[in-house]
Amino acid sequence: MLLSIPKYEFKERQETFKNIYKGKGCDASVLFSVTDIFYLTGFHFHPTERPIGILIDSQDKIHLFVPALEHEHAEEYSVVDYVHSYPEYPGIKHPMEYFKEILVEYGFENKKIGVDSLGYGSPMGYRGPAMDQLIDANFISLSGVVQELRYVKSPNEIELIKESCRWGNLVHRLLQKYTKAGLSEIEITSKASNEATKTMIDTLGPDYKPHGQTPYAVFRGQIGPESAFPHAVTQNIVLKKGDTLVTGAASSVFGYTSELERVMFVEEYSKEQEKYFNHMYEAQEVAFNAIKPGRTYADVEKDVQAYFKENNLTELTRHHTGHNIGLLGHEAPFFDLGDQTILEPGMVVTVEPGIYVMGLGGFRHSDTILVTKNGIELLTYYPRDLQSLICY
Amino acid sequence: MLLSIPKYEFKERQETFKNIYKGKGCDASVLFSVTDIFYLTGFHFHPTERPIGILIDSQDKIHLFVPALEHEHAEEYSVVDYVHSYPEYPGIKHPMEYFKEILVEYGFENKKIGVDSLGYGSPMGYRGPAMDQLIDANFISLSGVVQELRYVKSPNEIELIKESCRWGNLVHRLLQKYTKAGLSEIEITSKASNEATKTMIDTLGPDYKPHGQTPYAVFRGQIGPESAFPHAVTQNIVLKKGDTLVTGAASSVFGYTSELERVMFVEEYSKEQEKYFNHMYEAQEVAFNAIKPGRTYADVEKDVQAYFKENNLTELTRHHTGHNIGLLGHEAPFFDLGDQTILEPGMVVTVEPGIYVMGLGGFRHSDTILVTKNGIELLTYYPRDLQSLICY
Repeated sequence: MLLSIPKYEFKERQETFKNIYKGKGCDASVLFSVTDIFYLTGFHFHPTERPIGILIDSQDKIHLFVPALEHEHAEEYSVVDYVHSYPEYPGIKHPMEYFKEILVEYGFENKKIGVDSLGYGSPMGYRGPAMDQLIDANFISLSGVVQELRYVKSPNEIELIKESCRWGNLVHRLLQKYTKAGLSEIEITSKASNEATKTMIDTLGPDYKPHGQTPYAVFRGQIGPESAFPHAVTQNIVLKKGDTLVTGAASSVFGYTSELERVMFVEEYSKEQEKYFNHMYEAQEVAFNAIKPGRTYADVEKDVQAYFKENNLTELTRHHTGHNIGLLGHEAPFFDLGDQTILEPGMVVTVEPGIYVMGLGGFRHSDTILVTKNGIELLTYYPRDLQSLICY
Repeated sequence: MLLSIPKYEFKERQETFKNIYKGKGCDASVLFSVTDIFYLTGFHFHPTERPIGILIDSQDKIHLFVPALEHEHAEEYSVVDYVHSYPEYPGIKHPMEYFKEILVEYGFENKKIGVDSLGYGSPMGYRGPAMDQLIDANFISLSGVVQELRYVKSPNEIELIKESCRWGNLVHRLLQKYTKAGLSEIEITSKASNEATKTMIDTLGPDYKPHGQTPYAVFRGQIGPESAFPHAVTQNIVLKKGDTLVTGAASSVFGYTSELERVMFVEEYSKEQEKYFNHMYEAQEVAFNAIKPGRTYADVEKDVQAYFKENNLTELTRHHTGHNIGLLGHEAPFFDLGDQTILEPGMVVTVEPGIYVMGLGGFRHSDTILVTKNGIELLTYYPRDLQSLICY
């Protein structure tokens, strides 16, 4: 049972990344993105006011730069050559001044340095100088480079996402079981989430590291007419008979997540609810059939939009058909008319065309699928048909 | 019972903000920070690849710019004059091109425009042009301006933070009740979190909007020797007799949060554990006594560090004494030697000096306190003394 990315894979990722930035003429590189740092080093970090970064010097050594309070933790859990730390933020001497000393010590001055951005960013009170104010060098943008490495998932990553789907399925099953008219949103979702979490822990044992959220199921406020707001927030509505529900269920496994969403009905449904459910179902089938290596993300979106247009539903749509998923809940590329990225085997995407009818409700399933040599493999496996999705 | 910020307060905040940016010579302004947008308009948004922004034009009208999927939601829940939306990201036409049209239509060209940053940012696959590539104007940085407005809390904000503390107290009580040797971290925390959530929902009723997390309690992996890592992540360790634990408990109320953390011991403690507990307790007392309007955040940190130095504990510290709290879990300013901000009545801060002993454990209480005219009021009220914090 695979529950984490093995050390050799972090080393492979680092090699791949070094080859790319060297191919762009960089002598060395600096990254501030916490997700990309986790991807390359396995160091999982909750960003706050305290900056973090990695540097790869011209001898190919990887340096992790963290606040003192993370030093030992970084030594123990990260796949890097050196850990450096600064006392505190903002500090009498700003963390970026310590960062500068490392840059100078390891010969970054007057070099070509690849950077993902010119500095660390966080809404939690961080302010600091940009890289080009710290040191004289020729900066080359590596914005999006690691993100693009993350497009195609490795066999190990796919295993972790499958593990995530398994527990997403359980928490969704419990969500459906506990969904009843007269109960409020959070009562139902917290009961299902809690029970699935306990079961997951008991099943996987102490090697399970979420690096994200343990199993959880949500309605996000998408209950009854409010489900017509595609990304509503929890208002803790009490459920009524005949409500359309839009759910969400997931679970992180070593930072990897998946997406499972279903339209459900409380006890009964009208002809109108059935009509939109069926169109949503068919639109998802259109997308499944449209996804093949060699086609673009935009091609898939075109096929789905053509289905909606043929059925006079375009006015009821609000968003594109899906996105990549992995270390973040939404990752590029997107099933969107403006995204010309070509589908490749190993990409993991969500398929979630939606129909939103004001006053009635929202209609959106989301499945997580793997692009394969010949088409797709559904990684989520919760029933999609209407009769399976009525809550009694 | 106050469970949200009333509409008039959003209007007051907008007035205050307008006066500030006009005082800086700006004709109009543009903000991209989701937290600051919520603070000014009440529009709660989960940032993804899809950009969001607000514009305030030279007629003082507030425009909210959102993706189409948020349009109706924004109309219903935000305190603004106009809602504009774009179809999708990346789209055939990029969202920032729509944004540009609004800027032009409302006369932003060749004006002095205050901006919090030059564009929307998100790790979730967003890329787009900066403001200065979109439109000819004189850009003036408003970086940190709304953040500084958020330093001093209004009476309504303080009420919401007190409500948060109440439920943080319950979930921590349950955490302590369910903490037993032989159980794993997530079993304990999910049971406490679930029960507190149900109780909070039943007590407050459907007017409760979390806009954040419902009550939760965590150890974040800070169990036994691992508690010596101040910001560890969950490893789902099984608890043993004699373990030092560092907890955390909180609950969001209309986006406002609080912080309650305690050192606890499983069944028994050694002389050494008692010694460090007592020093941590005293250091927190030093901080409580040090906080007074008119002193600086750095002054408080100096007093705490003096205590640690007198007791030869400096080597065992890893971080500053605390930070503001409100819409985010960490906000500026910080109790840090480098932070010369002056304390004012109405500021809400955490007080959490910590001692970390490798191989033994971590020692850190955190309380959320209000700065008052004469000193402080503790908003968290969970017992702090050692005898109250032993888990049987």
